[in-house]
Amino acid sequence: MHINPIIESKAELTEASSGSLPIVISSRIRLARNLSQFFFPGWANSSQRDEVLATCLNAIGRMDSMKNGTRLEMAELTELEKQILVERHLISRELQHKSPESGVYISSDQSCSIMINEEDHLRIQKVRRGMHFSELWQEINPIDSYLEKELDFAFSDDFGYLTACPTNLGTGIRASAMLHLPGLVIADHMEKVVRTVNHLGIAVRGLFGEGSEATGSLFQISNQQTLGESESHIIDRLTKVLDAIIEQEQNAREKLLEDSPAMIRDKLSRAAGILKSAYLLNSEESMSMLSLLRLAVDLHFLPEHFRCVIDRFFIETQPGHVQYQCGKATGPQQRDEWRATQMRNAFASLPSLDFNK
Amino acid sequence: MHINPIIESKAELTEASSGSLPIVISSRIRLARNLSQFFFPGWANSSQRDEVLATCLNAIGRMDSMKNGTRLEMAELTELEKQILVERHLISRELQHKSPESGVYISSDQSCSIMINEEDHLRIQKVRRGMHFSELWQEINPIDSYLEKELDFAFSDDFGYLTACPTNLGTGIRASAMLHLPGLVIADHMEKVVRTVNHLGIAVRGLFGEGSEATGSLFQISNQQTLGESESHIIDRLTKVLDAIIEQEQNAREKLLEDSPAMIRDKLSRAAGILKSAYLLNSEESMSMLSLLRLAVDLHFLPEHFRCVIDRFFIETQPGHVQYQCGKATGPQQRDEWRATQMRNAFASLPSLDFNK
Repeated sequence: MHINPIIESKAELTEASSGSLPIVISSRIRLARNLSQFFFPGWANSSQRDEVLATCLNAIGRMDSMKNGTRLEMAELTELEKQILVERHLISRELQHKSPESGVYISSDQSCSIMINEEDHLRIQKVRRGMHFSELWQEINPIDSYLEKELDFAFSDDFGYLTACPTNLGTGIRASAMLHLPGLVIADHMEKVVRTVNHLGIAVRGLFGEGSEATGSLFQISNQQTLGESESHIIDRLTKVLDAIIEQEQNAREKLLEDSPAMIRDKLSRAAGILKSAYLLNSEESMSMLSLLRLAVDLHFLPEHFRCVIDRFFIETQPGHVQYQCGKATGPQQRDEWRATQMRNAFASLPSLDFNK
Repeated sequence: MHINPIIESKAELTEASSGSLPIVISSRIRLARNLSQFFFPGWANSSQRDEVLATCLNAIGRMDSMKNGTRLEMAELTELEKQILVERHLISRELQHKSPESGVYISSDQSCSIMINEEDHLRIQKVRRGMHFSELWQEINPIDSYLEKELDFAFSDDFGYLTACPTNLGTGIRASAMLHLPGLVIADHMEKVVRTVNHLGIAVRGLFGEGSEATGSLFQISNQQTLGESESHIIDRLTKVLDAIIEQEQNAREKLLEDSPAMIRDKLSRAAGILKSAYLLNSEESMSMLSLLRLAVDLHFLPEHFRCVIDRFFIETQPGHVQYQCGKATGPQQRDEWRATQMRNAFASLPSLDFNK
């Protein structure tokens, strides 16, 4: 498979969350950019898109930070390969389904991916575990500057960077964080949080962005506005909202532990019991159980070292990854069996949850 | 409490199923009898019922086989005590709710209970673990004969023993077996079995008889007809039907193991996982999980010695028994907590299910 190096590298997955709050799984900045001398991808014809793809891939390949990276053209990938890239958040669902004359360049540590001919000519994305927007900004800025020099970006003095969709006009920036909010989900407060946050121009989406479900209590939270504000102001505003959501999540957890200790113990301990005993596990149930187990680690009911196993499974338990491991010939039930076997083995040594801590 | 000796005796509960098929939990014969010189309980006034109660209790108390037995008048029992007697199948739900001037005499090993002023003046019941109708018949016959000599039963040469409800007229016998049929339940064949069996004049009921749910895949199967057939013929006919149901259950289990091994493994192993890990367990879920665990023992996926623990919990996990253990002051959630704690402790040493056997 073209994407073997990406699947087999554990670099990104096993890295510790290094001091960040465990509620923040990862943070991400992406910039939307377009080449001034070409139509936007949606308006360009096939040969123009081809030219953009080749031009961009070549320019990206010359960057030092992309050395040993993986250069992929969508047309060469199987559906399964594209699915795996989506599950790793290296390409968007939109790129997955819009394959001809588009591509992605992924850095060797998978922290940077640059999509070509998605909605815009370029979508430059940088990701880190935990909440690290200033580092991300420092890292993505030189990539942007380098490509701007090489590629002549479409820019207007009035509007800033021009983009295919007006929602990205101006800075072209989207900053987002993936938060793990099981407390707010269990307490049934997410709807209220989403409503409040939307009023502040911040979007809350599921695991795979727009229109996707919040599997495993994972939520992508990002800025909506890109125009009329500086990048640093956008990031500051998002950070403030994220801090508030994190505080709400912590409060929800404390309140649940105080008001409904038996219910919480029951939920967390059963999740461990199911992962240790099931012989059939579908992707959705796996994510839910892993989410609860992660909460148990956060609350110190389980040893910290299980966190990286859980986080690895958050990715590897998803349908594409499981199908890749199982081989083509297997049906959905065999995949559920395989998933359950992986979990039973990985969590066989999981101790009983220690609620006296 | 008046019924302490009954709750604290483990005699009946821990007795091994001694060679019987594990599908048959217990078998039971009961005889409906009435005293010729009194109105049926439903027609009698209070003082007549009182007289029947005293007369019967005294006669029963003089029997050798009831030595050290427990003599109970319903009016003296609390609701909880009556509930516990129902859960042990020592009195009927009807007697539970029809308390004044009625009672029950229970033998010290709890294998015999004689209700007074239920629907009939006397309901003599003998129970054994496993399927043992001929032994039961040999045991209940002398009790019946002794009481007939002492009490002058209502008997007609045309109809046989007279009873309050015509469905019991004649022999007044009801033979029944409690079967554990998880295979037929999982395979969704119970409805068909019930329909077929009903055509043969055999009734299928839930755990507590008429109108009750089949909690834990436990079913009471009994004769409907009491008139125009000898007792031995009734028992023979029931036995043939029971043998057929047992065969169907065995076939269902074999077919499930052959056709859906992953589904069965998943169900059984999860049941063990839940009993080992839950911190809240209501009565219904407990019964379902225990039922699956019992099936796992039957199929040799778990050691045989867990069977008696499971069978004990089938009784002790029920609401009345739990409330008795927990004390009056506890609410429903505390009882679910207590039940879960009992299960976690009892099954902490439960090994992983061994599906290679």
